[in-house]
Amino acid sequence: MTDSFAVTAVVGNPKRLSRTLTTAEALAAAIAAGIGSEPRTSSTDLAELYRDGIEPPHDGFEHALDRIRTAPVLVVGTPVYKASYTGLLKLFLDQLPPGALGGTVAVPVTVAASAEHRLLADLQLRPILAELGASLPVPSLTLREQELGDLDAILASWAGANLPALAAAVGRQSAGVPA
Amino acid sequence: MTDSFAVTAVVGNPKRLSRTLTTAEALAAAIAAGIGSEPRTSSTDLAELYRDGIEPPHDGFEHALDRIRTAPVLVVGTPVYKASYTGLLKLFLDQLPPGALGGTVAVPVTVAASAEHRLLADLQLRPILAELGASLPVPSLTLREQELGDLDAILASWAGANLPALAAAVGRQSAGVPA
Amino acid sequence: MTDSFAVTAVVGNPKRLSRTLTTAEALAAAIAAGIGSEPRTSSTDLAELYRDGIEPPHDGFEHALDRIRTAPVLVVGTPVYKASYTGLLKLFLDQLPPGALGGTVAVPVTVAASAEHRLLADLQLRPILAELGASLPVPSLTLREQELGDLDAILASWAGANLPALAAAVGRQSAGVPA
Amino acid sequence: MTDSFAVTAVVGNPKRLSRTLTTAEALAAAIAAGIGSEPRTSSTDLAELYRDGIEPPHDGFEHALDRIRTAPVLVVGTPVYKASYTGLLKLFLDQLPPGALGGTVAVPVTVAASAEHRLLADLQLRPILAELGASLPVPSLTLREQELGDLDAILASWAGANLPALAAAVGRQSAGVPA
Repeated sequence: MTDSFAVTAVVGNPKRLSRTLTTAEALAAAIAAGIGSEPRTSSTDLAELYRDGIEPPHDGFEHALDRIRTAPVLVVGTPVYKASYTGLLKLFLDQLPPGALGGTVAVPVTVAASAEHRLLADLQLRPILAELGASLPVPSLTLREQELGDLDAILASWAGANLPALAAAVGRQSAGVPA
Repeated sequence: MTDSFAVTAVVGNPKRLSRTLTTAEALAAAIAAGIGSEPRTSSTDLAELYRDGIEPPHDGFEHALDRIRTAPVLVVGTPVYKASYTGLLKLFLDQLPPGALGGTVAVPVTVAASAEHRLLADLQLRPILAELGASLPVPSLTLREQELGDLDAILASWAGANLPALAAAVGRQSAGVPA
Repeated sequence: MTDSFAVTAVVGNPKRLSRTLTTAEALAAAIAAGIGSEPRTSSTDLAELYRDGIEPPHDGFEHALDRIRTAPVLVVGTPVYKASYTGLLKLFLDQLPPGALGGTVAVPVTVAASAEHRLLADLQLRPILAELGASLPVPSLTLREQELGDLDAILASWAGANLPALAAAVGRQSAGVPA
Repeated sequence: MTDSFAVTAVVGNPKRLSRTLTTAEALAAAIAAGIGSEPRTSSTDLAELYRDGIEPPHDGFEHALDRIRTAPVLVVGTPVYKASYTGLLKLFLDQLPPGALGGTVAVPVTVAASAEHRLLADLQLRPILAELGASLPVPSLTLREQELGDLDAILASWAGANLPALAAAVGRQSAGVPA
């Protein structure tokens, strides 16, 4: 396939320029590269968007929403805080219109400090994304902080296991499969 | 499309021949008819399978497992009991091998007595199905008992909204879309 | 009993001076009046605390934390947004030190627009409060918006059913029970 | 205190005479010994109760229900299966009358094979117990299988941290506190 294909990421780590952000961007890039031949990615760092208050600047919010609306795949990144996704991520999701993720395929990526918390944010985030209308056809990428050094290998493994199903869900074929 | 396409249902209502069973079978039939031109459906009534003990007869269990393995779409039906899916359904899922639903697209259908409990079983069931490897690309069908009289209309509406995405997720096209 | 007894509320409605706030304050007052003869209550409106950014003013945050640390009972109020508690509430909880609610008895109060969402925030909030070390000895007060006109009667009913257990959990006796 | 005090356990491991059962019984004994001077404990092994079918013998079920009704503290034990509590435990809870745990203080104990699953059953079980009316004043005991060899030390630590609050919640004093 030779057409353009957009993946966007939204990341709810309250620290700007976090490792969660770079991890989500790497996942978005891997998805875009695996599905479209002209991959395009973008990302929204919610720590930046909400820097000056819980009502983000109108332009910034609309810009983030436009990206979500025009990208068939949305990577949703969060660290695991207090046994769940972050409040900052939910603050953004709370401001989306009802059904805002209808027609969007969402792929959560979570980063936990401990093994015991590894699965918690994903467990609680997926129903929220489903409530917003998102399709969740593939397993989330749930990471521990100490695994981030092996991110390339982990992404390759995740992509090998899940890109075909993800591509099918967005009506595409994965790049590795002959058309 | 003219090929055979199988949808199977597994239903965790502890009462045999329940309305949850007939509802899940109707959903399975609607999915099969909408995706394959030679639809085949089957169902497993867990109240029947576990009638004589929590270790179901080996043949019966293997038969249910075979159906799941050969059907690309699995409808998972449960009433809402005590704010969640039923223990009977989970008893069966507990006995599946790890990753047993890998490659399977699951569609939950839940039936609640009250509006307040309508969403609870789905909220808690989806992570369990994901843990087993299932893909959950479309919203569940969450019903109230009093809506069961309108099931045909509800199924038509659900199918119109979700069959294209479901067909894409299983690498098909929905019957309503010219090939 | 004749001693002073403090109940504090923290409320995560992103709108300042919300009905969630007044509802949580009314619940705090009912608890304080029912347990201590010199009831004292206070509240933190998170929409106010986070007005100018996701890092609240240090003084304001410390003040809220002090109230929580010195009050044996914490009322935690949230509307139901996107099938759960609000991001604003979680943003505050995310910033608490580990175990910050150890020794605190927490009582959630949630306000939902629809019956179907009535129980969702409570279901997901209680594990978060437990993670922070809170004790949750009594059922939450889960309300629909349309019930807020009957709040006095609802509070009286809730207090009658739950104040004895709540008083026991904080090592007190409820005012209505002869010593 | 010199009076009799009963703690009962109900355990949902589908294997009879499981380590989950002995662990739950040990927790029940520690609670009973710490709160009442004449401790009495009992337990129900659901693998035994449901051995011959999902409708347990009427006598056995009523006997288990009587124990729950007469014991102020109920220990609820489960292994972590498929990212949650077991279906067998929920099968029993599903058959309880509405509000059956009103007036009961519940203490979950979970046993997980891996660190990643350690918190999952507790997270999902507590709302179910709350739906049944139970009071949950103290943190659950969440264990990994490999910790079971240190159970005595872990129980002593858990009891030191939580028995005072648990005793208060049941209107008692813990044995370690002079009356």
